[in-house]
Amino acid sequence: MITILSGGTGTPKLIQGIKEIYPEEDITVIVNTVENLYMSRGYIAADIDTVMYTFADLIDEEFWYGIKGDTFIVREQLIEMGTEELLRLGDKDRATKLQKAILMDEGWTLTDIVELQKNKLGINATILPMSDDESEITIATKEYGDIEFHDFLIKYQCNCEVLEVKYGDVSPSPKIIEAIENSDKVIFGPSNPITSIRPIISLKGVEEALKEKEVIAVSPFVGKSAFSGPAGQFMNAFGYETSSKGVAELYKSFLNTLVIDNQDADFKEEIKEIIPNVIVCNTFMKTIEDKINLAKIVLDN
Amino acid sequence: MITILSGGTGTPKLIQGIKEIYPEEDITVIVNTVENLYMSRGYIAADIDTVMYTFADLIDEEFWYGIKGDTFIVREQLIEMGTEELLRLGDKDRATKLQKAILMDEGWTLTDIVELQKNKLGINATILPMSDDESEITIATKEYGDIEFHDFLIKYQCNCEVLEVKYGDVSPSPKIIEAIENSDKVIFGPSNPITSIRPIISLKGVEEALKEKEVIAVSPFVGKSAFSGPAGQFMNAFGYETSSKGVAELYKSFLNTLVIDNQDADFKEEIKEIIPNVIVCNTFMKTIEDKINLAKIVLDN
Repeated sequence: MITILSGGTGTPKLIQGIKEIYPEEDITVIVNTVENLYMSRGYIAADIDTVMYTFADLIDEEFWYGIKGDTFIVREQLIEMGTEELLRLGDKDRATKLQKAILMDEGWTLTDIVELQKNKLGINATILPMSDDESEITIATKEYGDIEFHDFLIKYQCNCEVLEVKYGDVSPSPKIIEAIENSDKVIFGPSNPITSIRPIISLKGVEEALKEKEVIAVSPFVGKSAFSGPAGQFMNAFGYETSSKGVAELYKSFLNTLVIDNQDADFKEEIKEIIPNVIVCNTFMKTIEDKINLAKIVLDN
Repeated sequence: MITILSGGTGTPKLIQGIKEIYPEEDITVIVNTVENLYMSRGYIAADIDTVMYTFADLIDEEFWYGIKGDTFIVREQLIEMGTEELLRLGDKDRATKLQKAILMDEGWTLTDIVELQKNKLGINATILPMSDDESEITIATKEYGDIEFHDFLIKYQCNCEVLEVKYGDVSPSPKIIEAIENSDKVIFGPSNPITSIRPIISLKGVEEALKEKEVIAVSPFVGKSAFSGPAGQFMNAFGYETSSKGVAELYKSFLNTLVIDNQDADFKEEIKEIIPNVIVCNTFMKTIEDKINLAKIVLDN
């Protein structure tokens, strides 16, 4: 039994490897929810949907959101009628988002909705939203003041100086502490440490539960650049170095092992002063073989 | 300049005829809104959309709602995920409904939304919702008590005894009285008198405005059966005969001319005792020629 903490891009790639070599029914994924929002009357839980679509082999790997081969009929009609959407939602993907909003209107918790949806998609893994509460994430920037996370990503294309990342105070979903406690190992994929993983480990009881467990993390950094997305800007805003060393500092209270890329081999000893074990290997996941190889290392160490 | 009062099925057929022979920019249609409702996070103004799609030559004439040739990708995905919708919404049609809800969330009035949508659809006629207020219609039935109008139509397939039709008290949209006042003629299409037309004429100021105008109505009844839908059940519930004579009684305070079907020729004299003019002709609108012929009669008398 393993638990994986996931955001929206890096970790799903690792999940693609893990699910090839580990029984899917023994995997629990706890997914970040602070980026969730209502848009176009749907409820967008982008990271959750990416994890679901990854397990269901539906994920559009070009964008790491949405369903591959999806159509965009509703979107194109909305544009034709004068409504531009910030996110590019396909039709099937829109159904996933609309169903969440429909069921939330009916009083369902996000946990129960995701349980329904992942079952309908034929997924045997357990997928848990980190929280059933409405979350929010705000980026304090030098240029534009406080802005919404999605505006930061899409409207401003991350082109601003991040002063602070603020997320609201939410309660953990009841099942996540139990999932961690029942796991032989907890895996942090190479997701954004600040916007994807830190919201989960900041939840009441999570850090304490992690301290009792074997925890392994894959660094999302190589040298001082992130594999994808604005992780660097956020690390700096929290006072951490934008590097695997910064990740080690951020996770040091509970982390047993950090996996860093071959290109960072020189930093191994320095990082070992922060956390017990450091593994050096290829962390780029371009092919399914890359993903399976990294999955093996994470599962075996 | 003419104004047409419309519901969702009979009148749009007449509009198809009128728009072939009368300048579209000189037509205003006031549309019933009491059947509007939120469904699947969209705002369903079925009668308005039917009128819009009719003008835009997009209407699905099999059902008299929705867009011909539309796809059902979102709907099919929702069903696959376990969410059945009462109404069968196509993808493009869903965009129309979602945009209404999106813009209402942003504070737009229904009048302004319809103005945007009909312009985007290239429609030169003016289409006015009867009201910008949230409306509702409840059917009191013998078998099931008070039920929603859409449940009556779809879930119960009209198979119950109607005791009463109740609609909430709403304000007229600001433009409708003006539209009637500026018209040379007001036309009531063969829509359900109780659920489609009566809600409009019950609005404050409408009946008074109609009394000053030349008003012509096409009866939706032949003998004692309605052309389509549950009009008969509703007429009885309000104490009117389910016939053209009943329609004459319902509209007598302002109606100048009633158009009845050839099959009802025998009732002409009886109806003339209620309202000044009665025209007997074919009121079945199967072909575009039928529609244009009836439109000519309505426009010329």
